[in-house]
Amino acid sequence: MASVNDLAILEVVIKRAAAYLTDPPRGSDPVISFASPTALADALTASVGMELADRSDQHSVDDVLASVEQVIEYSMHTSHPRFVNQNFAAPDPISVVGDWLGAALNTTGATFEAAPVFTLMESAVLSKLGRLAGYVESESDTLPELPPGLFCAGGSMGTLLALQLARHRWQPDITTSGANGDRLVLFVSTSGHYAAAKSAALLGIGTDGAVEVATDHEGAMIPVALNAAIDDARAAGHTPFAVIGTAGTTVTAAFDDLEALADICKSSGLWLHVDGCYGGSAMFSPQQAWQLRGVDRSDSCVWNLHKMMGMTQQCTALLVKDPPS
Amino acid sequence: MASVNDLAILEVVIKRAAAYLTDPPRGSDPVISFASPTALADALTASVGMELADRSDQHSVDDVLASVEQVIEYSMHTSHPRFVNQNFAAPDPISVVGDWLGAALNTTGATFEAAPVFTLMESAVLSKLGRLAGYVESESDTLPELPPGLFCAGGSMGTLLALQLARHRWQPDITTSGANGDRLVLFVSTSGHYAAAKSAALLGIGTDGAVEVATDHEGAMIPVALNAAIDDARAAGHTPFAVIGTAGTTVTAAFDDLEALADICKSSGLWLHVDGCYGGSAMFSPQQAWQLRGVDRSDSCVWNLHKMMGMTQQCTALLVKDPPS
Repeated sequence: MASVNDLAILEVVIKRAAAYLTDPPRGSDPVISFASPTALADALTASVGMELADRSDQHSVDDVLASVEQVIEYSMHTSHPRFVNQNFAAPDPISVVGDWLGAALNTTGATFEAAPVFTLMESAVLSKLGRLAGYVESESDTLPELPPGLFCAGGSMGTLLALQLARHRWQPDITTSGANGDRLVLFVSTSGHYAAAKSAALLGIGTDGAVEVATDHEGAMIPVALNAAIDDARAAGHTPFAVIGTAGTTVTAAFDDLEALADICKSSGLWLHVDGCYGGSAMFSPQQAWQLRGVDRSDSCVWNLHKMMGMTQQCTALLVKDPPS
Repeated sequence: MASVNDLAILEVVIKRAAAYLTDPPRGSDPVISFASPTALADALTASVGMELADRSDQHSVDDVLASVEQVIEYSMHTSHPRFVNQNFAAPDPISVVGDWLGAALNTTGATFEAAPVFTLMESAVLSKLGRLAGYVESESDTLPELPPGLFCAGGSMGTLLALQLARHRWQPDITTSGANGDRLVLFVSTSGHYAAAKSAALLGIGTDGAVEVATDHEGAMIPVALNAAIDDARAAGHTPFAVIGTAGTTVTAAFDDLEALADICKSSGLWLHVDGCYGGSAMFSPQQAWQLRGVDRSDSCVWNLHKMMGMTQQCTALLVKDPPS
């Protein structure tokens, strides 16, 4: 049970956070009041400060409120209309209060028993996304036994898990006995995200195993270059197992031709993973969904709903069409 | 900018969430009103429902409020004094409103420029934890250039990253050229967490490479058994590279003898990772900190502040004493 002082703190912080949410900085308000780390640390000593001593008294309500004002003053105002960023955007305030409710309930999504409502919601949203991607029957409006994927902590994590599934389908005994020294390789365009190389390093494949394929002038992978890269890898005695198609590159928002990549993956027996972190949300748009034509033929797809769908960070969906057992 | 309807929704949801936070279920209130997935999905159709059709009108404020009431009614009340769970506990309401402010600001912690206040806070908290673990000079109250670790999405993720660092120190070229077929092995007690095996699978080491070491009657690793296991692995031609000491096992809250493990790791040249997800918070207690004696000699340590420190989920600190370059 919260103390009287705690209750007073809760009251002022909730009031201030609510005011920020319903009436955020805009117009001529600054997007950020930037201070260097030293200047910022100095400024914060005026309220509760950054020093975490071994023992200290509880801060007063006034000090905490002053600190909240400073946190707001010196933070990036991501809801400001002039905040422009390639990685995320302003959250829809409705998404923010959804987060608030979730934080107050503080459930874990690990099992249905621990979080009945939220696991059901996760299934419902993943099924909706799976229908958009063509992974799940579009006629079906009943919830599947298991959702076609999961939400995870960021796009790099989604790509890591997708590549692990791809490797597992290729060579299931790696899960128990480990990599046997075969040089596994995956393919991603030169404009693709560095999540590919990071994942290759973590998986023990090595960054050399994330082979970069040339792109056209817009930044989309050249399919004949992918074919050549696969041939080259095989000629070198390496073992191709996956291709990452990028749906919305970070720099130019280019979309790889997923139909062409799916054809190549089908004929080569490779797993097609779609990195739709940036551009996946085009699937919601009748005018733009064609950019991801062929995504229904991929094996997995990851997309970040905090980039274009107004969700708070990090809201990453990993969809898997047919998880290997 | 939020619409008039959105503002009305924000108002009712904030009010209800605040009431839940300041006056949570207790006493004879149920810890959970359990419903099967089907019954729950049926019940929710009375408000906004779980069907996510291709097109639908915006829900009324009344429907949204009714839905919020249902979300609360059917969720686990983790703040209830009778909620008992080995994985997490009631959040301190102050932590919850900290989350609320963070969600409203919606910054990313990727760079100082994008989140000056929160990256500074992360450094300050990690430095405090690093001082408790004996990784950082306890006299120092200035912030280090780089914090001694990072916060990450759960204990399994922290252990995965720690083991990757351990492998990288052992064999740096794996990061670029991949696993060469050497059978790397790590050691964890039979009472340790399955994060060890999960990490071994993801890293391409394989679950066979997560060797289980016998425990005593309390569930703590037997040091002589660890020595024997290392000898056995080397005799079999395998390559030991890390030991996981468990500080608080999931089932019996047993603490491995970290001093003994540190001695063995030092003489064997192995990385010592401490899985303090459950029991790491004992470092805050002058009465209990002895349970982790020797943690200052470890190379990395992960602990979950959402288990015993009242933080909302997931709040996992990964500390690294001397990150390999």
